[in-house]
Amino acid sequence: MDYSKILNKTIQEIKPSGIRKFFDIAAEMDDVISLGVGEPDFQTPWAVRQKAVQVIETKRTVYTANAGLEALRRSVSEYTKKKIGVEYDPVSEIVITVGGSEAIDISIRTLVEPGDEVLIVEPSFVCYSPIVKLSGGIPVPIETKVENNFRLTAEELKNSITEKTKLLILPFPNNPTGAIMEREDLEQIAEVLRGTDIMVISDEIYSELTYGKKHCSIAEIDGMKERTILINGFSKAFAMTGWRLGYACAPNPIAQQIVKLHQYAIMCSPTVSQYAAIEALENCEDEVRKMVDEYNVRRRFVTDSFNKLGLSCFNPEGAFYVFPCIKNTGLTSEEFCEKLLYSKKVAVVPGNAFGDCGEGFIRVSYAYSLNHISEAVSRIGEFLEDIKRN
Amino acid sequence: MDYSKILNKTIQEIKPSGIRKFFDIAAEMDDVISLGVGEPDFQTPWAVRQKAVQVIETKRTVYTANAGLEALRRSVSEYTKKKIGVEYDPVSEIVITVGGSEAIDISIRTLVEPGDEVLIVEPSFVCYSPIVKLSGGIPVPIETKVENNFRLTAEELKNSITEKTKLLILPFPNNPTGAIMEREDLEQIAEVLRGTDIMVISDEIYSELTYGKKHCSIAEIDGMKERTILINGFSKAFAMTGWRLGYACAPNPIAQQIVKLHQYAIMCSPTVSQYAAIEALENCEDEVRKMVDEYNVRRRFVTDSFNKLGLSCFNPEGAFYVFPCIKNTGLTSEEFCEKLLYSKKVAVVPGNAFGDCGEGFIRVSYAYSLNHISEAVSRIGEFLEDIKRN
Repeated sequence: MDYSKILNKTIQEIKPSGIRKFFDIAAEMDDVISLGVGEPDFQTPWAVRQKAVQVIETKRTVYTANAGLEALRRSVSEYTKKKIGVEYDPVSEIVITVGGSEAIDISIRTLVEPGDEVLIVEPSFVCYSPIVKLSGGIPVPIETKVENNFRLTAEELKNSITEKTKLLILPFPNNPTGAIMEREDLEQIAEVLRGTDIMVISDEIYSELTYGKKHCSIAEIDGMKERTILINGFSKAFAMTGWRLGYACAPNPIAQQIVKLHQYAIMCSPTVSQYAAIEALENCEDEVRKMVDEYNVRRRFVTDSFNKLGLSCFNPEGAFYVFPCIKNTGLTSEEFCEKLLYSKKVAVVPGNAFGDCGEGFIRVSYAYSLNHISEAVSRIGEFLEDIKRN
Repeated sequence: MDYSKILNKTIQEIKPSGIRKFFDIAAEMDDVISLGVGEPDFQTPWAVRQKAVQVIETKRTVYTANAGLEALRRSVSEYTKKKIGVEYDPVSEIVITVGGSEAIDISIRTLVEPGDEVLIVEPSFVCYSPIVKLSGGIPVPIETKVENNFRLTAEELKNSITEKTKLLILPFPNNPTGAIMEREDLEQIAEVLRGTDIMVISDEIYSELTYGKKHCSIAEIDGMKERTILINGFSKAFAMTGWRLGYACAPNPIAQQIVKLHQYAIMCSPTVSQYAAIEALENCEDEVRKMVDEYNVRRRFVTDSFNKLGLSCFNPEGAFYVFPCIKNTGLTSEEFCEKLLYSKKVAVVPGNAFGDCGEGFIRVSYAYSLNHISEAVSRIGEFLEDIKRN
């Protein structure tokens, strides 16, 4: 059968993730040292795991309510109120999802229709544009610039808006740049959006991981809660990637459509993870603090190291990535990563995997031990010497 | 803000599940006895739970490969080969999903484009039509009839095919009717499909639950594997609903598109569930057998009881539902269920929740203890007496 005739055309045109492509190569090689993966190297807090074990041993793990356990939604509501001062009704404005990923997928599908333009702040995580395209929407990238600390400016936003603009996807703290948006930045963005019909999906999955500055959500800004779908989850803050649990908070009329789609497409999120997540929100603040402190030490080390190596490195204030510029090597991002992998067996991710404007940069994760990072950095140093010599 | 202007129009038009609607009413009442839920009343086998506990205590529960743990895909491959004699390559033809639900969602999205017609055998589970609509497809119901044992006939299929037909959704063993398709039936269906470009999504989530007759998959029939996406999962056979784990098996070019979408929309399925599921496939055959035997006893009891009550009841050969006809009461399905719920506090689901052709029937689940079923049936008997008297 000629499957290319049968398969949806859009899905065939969508490229596989540029992150994964690199790992597939690395996975085939021995002794590769990776700074590639965007996942905490810490173990999930013991209290969370203990709760999961208790549920598995004593309860039947049946379907929960489609929107998630009400107890968990209550915890999410309280946690969100505590963290950003915004209150969502646990009964009607919070949906528990399969990681932040599903929350992004169903939020986009709930809003976007064919022909809608969706503004995607780039560089950013790889899933927004494919999901928008599959919904018939048109992804419109907005390039952030290193000279603006990779923050979105009101000017850039204004210049990208047309009559067809349905949605802005705002991914801060940012993967891959580590940039954050502060209250003043968000207030200027809000000023542009107020009075329009443009919605915001604010992907705040790294909100717990900021260094020195407290995370600010666009939902905190006057008039913004009503036009924002706030997405967060447990993967990054609580080292719970494999538990697949996240959530979307949105005004009731939006949340009700999201939960309807979630019900048909997923039914409910994993039950054991939901019970365990209550524990994470209510009793793991100290453990999160310890992880953040450790990331912070590594962050300073990595940033310094790259700058010393002559790869100029923007000082990241959130997430667990640095995004050094490799333009002075004369290599493209892909060339750099490929040569580095083959010659020194170090895996990092080419910046253009996160949007065209990521070209000339590489993403380096510091969700690894200092020893591991240190070894990788020293190999990168050798690699740069080799380049200069040739 | 006027959200109705902003939200995707299709999602707004889609009705919430008719199953859920009823439970929301029932949940507000005291002492309701339910035969409504489509979920095993058994506990997940101990070996599965034990494996999960061991993983939580000793491993970091990180992301798995997007397509799922390779060990699990190997188990699925062997299990499928053993059960239906069809072999799928674990590396390139199997994707582990968040329950059968996600497998259905991403399979439909991978195939359907705007304007495609999708044949949906009805009555059937509630999610197919909404997902097809959201992909821009046109759901075309094919009504099965009690006089054909609710099986799909070649004639019915032939009459529904047009030039726009992209896909047939084949849901057997069937929820809600309990109908199965035997090899001869499937051979006639295959005869119609061979030589066309029509794909099949075969939702076989109840494949382990057949009574007396061994399940047959359309993928077993000559020339059908290449045009079939086979969907199955752990929820029903292994009493693992809350674990949220299923899978899609498909020819490589299709599976590769499915895994790409899965990667962007979900990332990977819950890690602990994946490890536990290997245990289910490899070491729980006896437990499944015991559950099936118990369902079978209940099945006979329920079917007999309804026939004795004068509600003629098709003899189901799969899943864990009976689908008695209530036309002789003079009530619609919804009236019947509502009056029964309010007057006798028994919850069952109106047949029209599963498609228009389910009108005049009710879905009764026997995934409950005999005591529980027996009490519900006797209340239904009283209800029917009351109706006659009025």
